[in-house]
Amino acid sequence: MQKIRGSRLYLLFMMFFGLGYVALADSPEVLTAEVVQTNLDYTWTLIAAAMVFFMQAGFAMLEIGFTRVKNAGNAVMKNVMDFCVGMLVYSAVGYAFMFGTGGVIGSSNFFLDGLTGWDWTFFLFQAMFAATAATIMAGAIAERTKFSSYLVASIVLTAIIYPLYGHWVWANGGWLKALGFTDFAGSAVVHSVGGWFALAGAIMVGPRIGKFVCKRATAIPGHNIPMAALGVFILFFGWFGFNAGSVTKGISDIGPIAVNTCIAGSAGGVAAMIFSYYIFKKMDIGMTLNGILAGLVAITAGCASMPTWAAFVVGIIGGVLVVSSVLFFDRIGVDDAVGAVSVHGVTGTWGTLAAGIFFSDRMFDFHVIGIQILGSVVAFIMGFGGGLIILYILKKTMGLRVRREEELEGLDMAEHGSVAYPEFQPKSELSIILSVKK
Amino acid sequence: MQKIRGSRLYLLFMMFFGLGYVALADSPEVLTAEVVQTNLDYTWTLIAAAMVFFMQAGFAMLEIGFTRVKNAGNAVMKNVMDFCVGMLVYSAVGYAFMFGTGGVIGSSNFFLDGLTGWDWTFFLFQAMFAATAATIMAGAIAERTKFSSYLVASIVLTAIIYPLYGHWVWANGGWLKALGFTDFAGSAVVHSVGGWFALAGAIMVGPRIGKFVCKRATAIPGHNIPMAALGVFILFFGWFGFNAGSVTKGISDIGPIAVNTCIAGSAGGVAAMIFSYYIFKKMDIGMTLNGILAGLVAITAGCASMPTWAAFVVGIIGGVLVVSSVLFFDRIGVDDAVGAVSVHGVTGTWGTLAAGIFFSDRMFDFHVIGIQILGSVVAFIMGFGGGLIILYILKKTMGLRVRREEELEGLDMAEHGSVAYPEFQPKSELSIILSVKK
Amino acid sequence: MQKIRGSRLYLLFMMFFGLGYVALADSPEVLTAEVVQTNLDYTWTLIAAAMVFFMQAGFAMLEIGFTRVKNAGNAVMKNVMDFCVGMLVYSAVGYAFMFGTGGVIGSSNFFLDGLTGWDWTFFLFQAMFAATAATIMAGAIAERTKFSSYLVASIVLTAIIYPLYGHWVWANGGWLKALGFTDFAGSAVVHSVGGWFALAGAIMVGPRIGKFVCKRATAIPGHNIPMAALGVFILFFGWFGFNAGSVTKGISDIGPIAVNTCIAGSAGGVAAMIFSYYIFKKMDIGMTLNGILAGLVAITAGCASMPTWAAFVVGIIGGVLVVSSVLFFDRIGVDDAVGAVSVHGVTGTWGTLAAGIFFSDRMFDFHVIGIQILGSVVAFIMGFGGGLIILYILKKTMGLRVRREEELEGLDMAEHGSVAYPEFQPKSELSIILSVKK
Repeated sequence: MQKIRGSRLYLLFMMFFGLGYVALADSPEVLTAEVVQTNLDYTWTLIAAAMVFFMQAGFAMLEIGFTRVKNAGNAVMKNVMDFCVGMLVYSAVGYAFMFGTGGVIGSSNFFLDGLTGWDWTFFLFQAMFAATAATIMAGAIAERTKFSSYLVASIVLTAIIYPLYGHWVWANGGWLKALGFTDFAGSAVVHSVGGWFALAGAIMVGPRIGKFVCKRATAIPGHNIPMAALGVFILFFGWFGFNAGSVTKGISDIGPIAVNTCIAGSAGGVAAMIFSYYIFKKMDIGMTLNGILAGLVAITAGCASMPTWAAFVVGIIGGVLVVSSVLFFDRIGVDDAVGAVSVHGVTGTWGTLAAGIFFSDRMFDFHVIGIQILGSVVAFIMGFGGGLIILYILKKTMGLRVRREEELEGLDMAEHGSVAYPEFQPKSELSIILSVKK
Repeated sequence: MQKIRGSRLYLLFMMFFGLGYVALADSPEVLTAEVVQTNLDYTWTLIAAAMVFFMQAGFAMLEIGFTRVKNAGNAVMKNVMDFCVGMLVYSAVGYAFMFGTGGVIGSSNFFLDGLTGWDWTFFLFQAMFAATAATIMAGAIAERTKFSSYLVASIVLTAIIYPLYGHWVWANGGWLKALGFTDFAGSAVVHSVGGWFALAGAIMVGPRIGKFVCKRATAIPGHNIPMAALGVFILFFGWFGFNAGSVTKGISDIGPIAVNTCIAGSAGGVAAMIFSYYIFKKMDIGMTLNGILAGLVAITAGCASMPTWAAFVVGIIGGVLVVSSVLFFDRIGVDDAVGAVSVHGVTGTWGTLAAGIFFSDRMFDFHVIGIQILGSVVAFIMGFGGGLIILYILKKTMGLRVRREEELEGLDMAEHGSVAYPEFQPKSELSIILSVKK
Repeated sequence: MQKIRGSRLYLLFMMFFGLGYVALADSPEVLTAEVVQTNLDYTWTLIAAAMVFFMQAGFAMLEIGFTRVKNAGNAVMKNVMDFCVGMLVYSAVGYAFMFGTGGVIGSSNFFLDGLTGWDWTFFLFQAMFAATAATIMAGAIAERTKFSSYLVASIVLTAIIYPLYGHWVWANGGWLKALGFTDFAGSAVVHSVGGWFALAGAIMVGPRIGKFVCKRATAIPGHNIPMAALGVFILFFGWFGFNAGSVTKGISDIGPIAVNTCIAGSAGGVAAMIFSYYIFKKMDIGMTLNGILAGLVAITAGCASMPTWAAFVVGIIGGVLVVSSVLFFDRIGVDDAVGAVSVHGVTGTWGTLAAGIFFSDRMFDFHVIGIQILGSVVAFIMGFGGGLIILYILKKTMGLRVRREEELEGLDMAEHGSVAYPEFQPKSELSIILSVKK
């Protein structure tokens, strides 16, 4: 080590990726029950982190399935790169802002400096959450946004906006945490912030060409429903890691948390299916899939502090809410290609409130609910407000949107010089429009 | 709490989802090795439950891949909703019937009432098994069955038929268990019951239009073989949770169980491939994929009580059996769209018998085998008999089958008002028929 | 047992699959912290094994997505069967050669004979690694190789070549291990050996028809980019099991190992994207996906013995290297359909060297690096040399390549009598060529 400590190369990278050394320790300590429990906590949290990582695949499949052939490769790139770039950015500064010591904002552990033992696993778990928040926007602004601008927006979210709000809610000394704000696994921190940021994106970038004809929303059907369904299954699988993993301990509490998660997701799917049947006279597939996600998002804040019957109620309302919300945003002229704002922003806020309404032994307590409202408003300001600012800057500098002919041709060819399915014959635009009944 | 205990709303939902409160306990107990082992058992069982959940994605991809474009969205809905509805129904009554105290049938823990500690994780694991049993029929009756009727049949299976048989085999006081019937992870309880129920479904709903021409079966090729293969990989992955998770303890026994599972699945695939080559002079892809599943289904009952060489034999026979069985059902005019009856019903029964034939240190003992035969017969009566009754009632009331023009148009449009791949140009029917060599 | 010990049937299979009996032990031992830790180690290693198994699905999706419609079913069969056959072969002889006692080659535990306790889980984990090494070639020789010859080559790799090199590096008494050669999770053992074997395959079987026109490489675009992306996500997910699981203990070291893995994979993706933009003026999707894999392959050897900043550097270089390498092999006329030689062979070698360059507290030590060079050369000789020999023999006996008209028609129809997507209308060859801009 001495030899290289002075070398320029080393100094350069020391500035980049800190000092934390890895070495297979010989576990010198005496094995006590405490030590083994700690090891179990590490192991479970790492597995849960891997499961949350896998949700990236779910988000990717969902967005690809729910959008058009000509932009499928671009959706791949957005979902792959917001993780890769986000991981690097979060490890460089995001984690420090979020969990470093400090009042309004953390300011230690930049570039993972000073991490020891448990910190590494905890960092990994948290990085996966940051990546989840970052990827939510991808679906909302799909099919017309410049890839480079998307990446920058995603970096800003992961580097500053998400960590700042997260610091207030989850870090020791966070002011919302001090007030008693409850958000166990991130209905507000991850989903609302990500969803409201996505709303800012959808508004700033504007609707896709052809989405609104004479102020009326037309359906632009997704090109691969089985792929979207696979995405939902993967997300549901990952959610066991997301919610039960947020205990960060391998203890019995993970059981009821996972049951609540599962009940709420199932209830959301059933509610959305029935409600969509009530509205469209058909059991709508897209709405049902989004209903499941809505139930899962909604239970995330309160999964550890409410009884199972409440999880059922939370899921049902989540499922109805997401269908209504999708129709609402269509009505007001916001084009959210996959319903991400409704699933994460709206239902995430519902989940945050629900965590107060059904809070353990202080259920229906207005004081508790009031703090949840406060936290939800702050999440909206951070996500939507922060989103508007950064996206406005991007619009005035790099530009947010691809050119008209690029959008019509598809982003795959325009941005990446290739197509996603070069061998399948596409239908004519006319026959696609004719194939949509509604 | 006092405040709301008397409220009408609370009472309403108390009737629905019980009393079990979730609260992050402070683990007040002293950490002993026993406590940590228990925590490890919880954690492993929860992870295994998530893996078994993920099998739902596998079943969905398998069915979608093995059926036609025009019904892919309907397959999504069946596979998504049998889980969502099944989860709710099983938590409401199924679990109580299956693991509640009682002789012939359980009668406690309705609506998860009274669950504590370990019960939650155990419930979750069991709910995933119930969902597996429920989804088996989906593939067999694909492409022509009314969605609403399917859902009702699926509910009845999850609520009554599966829990009743499961109670006899797995619950304390179950009469088959008392006789010494062995079914470690559910070749009989999950797969045979689900498979024979599916057989009743395939018979009652009748073959798809065009499946049998002049009493001869024609091949209706699946539309997406890579997707079906993905399904098989996901199922294989989940099976490690299914079989090794059934120990519900994080102990060394999970190792050899997982090895047996893996050996049997591999042997099943190899045997089916070779046997299909022997019959068709081509290495058939669909048969090979089903052969892997057959090996996995077959080892499920005996994975914890037979040596590895026996697992190999069980898999080989499973692979040959599933090919023969698919041809047999084609011959007798039963249209099982994905081979679910063969994979789960027939091979599940073989696995149940095999668990007796190769039972640990009482191998080839006629007494042991006799009890396995008895249990298999009861599984057939419950699955097939129960299926015939409920499906007969459905046929006479709601109707089982969509109208002819709906079936020809495809269930996606008829039931859900959309298509799964609106942008890909479908081939003409003629060119599809011409593309099938066999 | 006595009854059957003498039976012929039993003797036959005893010769095949050994004696290791499975029985649910009653864990008679007193539960100490040591015992619970051991149980945790078993459980974590088994979960990691399942995750590494799932990488098979990732490799399959990657190859299918990166190749053409007409060979998708054949890609399914190769990926499914190299696992099934490989699993049986590795359990029969491979594991014995690799981890049996012995100097140059192991020679105990044939047919899993003599395995007890921990051995079962360890075997399972190792079998998944063997299957990974075996499947690498599948992508390189895709779209023109005889299925039966591929299977035989895959068997030889799993039975002899991989175990032999693995014995030297990982088994007690292995000579490379004794020299201090470091390959924590298999950049050399799994990826280099598999990748160089694949290079031998790509050379011996020759390029696909149409790949090289007038000595210039033409792009043969993959038919399903979202499926390839799903493959990358699945592989990334599995890599947490691959690298952190290689500790085979549930202890705190798994945290920083997983972080290194994640940082390197992300850095590889970012580097490949930027470098591909620099070269092609487009952010190439295929290169970016391969860049992620390159980062993961490269960190595999040194993930447990280097600081995070080094993991970042290793990933960056891996990402640049894989793009350069793909272009290099195109230039010299080697047709590697998915870039497997570059991803696994070249980047695996880089990772092996990097594990020396950045080795813990002996960083930039020429003695350490020298041994890594030696190990890498030996890996090349074993993989490439062994590959040339076996593939030469196969070429002269069974033949390596399908007939010209079979290749043009597609292997699905030629080898398996079916097509992967019978209902989607394919584009004409001309319109495919016109759709490729570069």
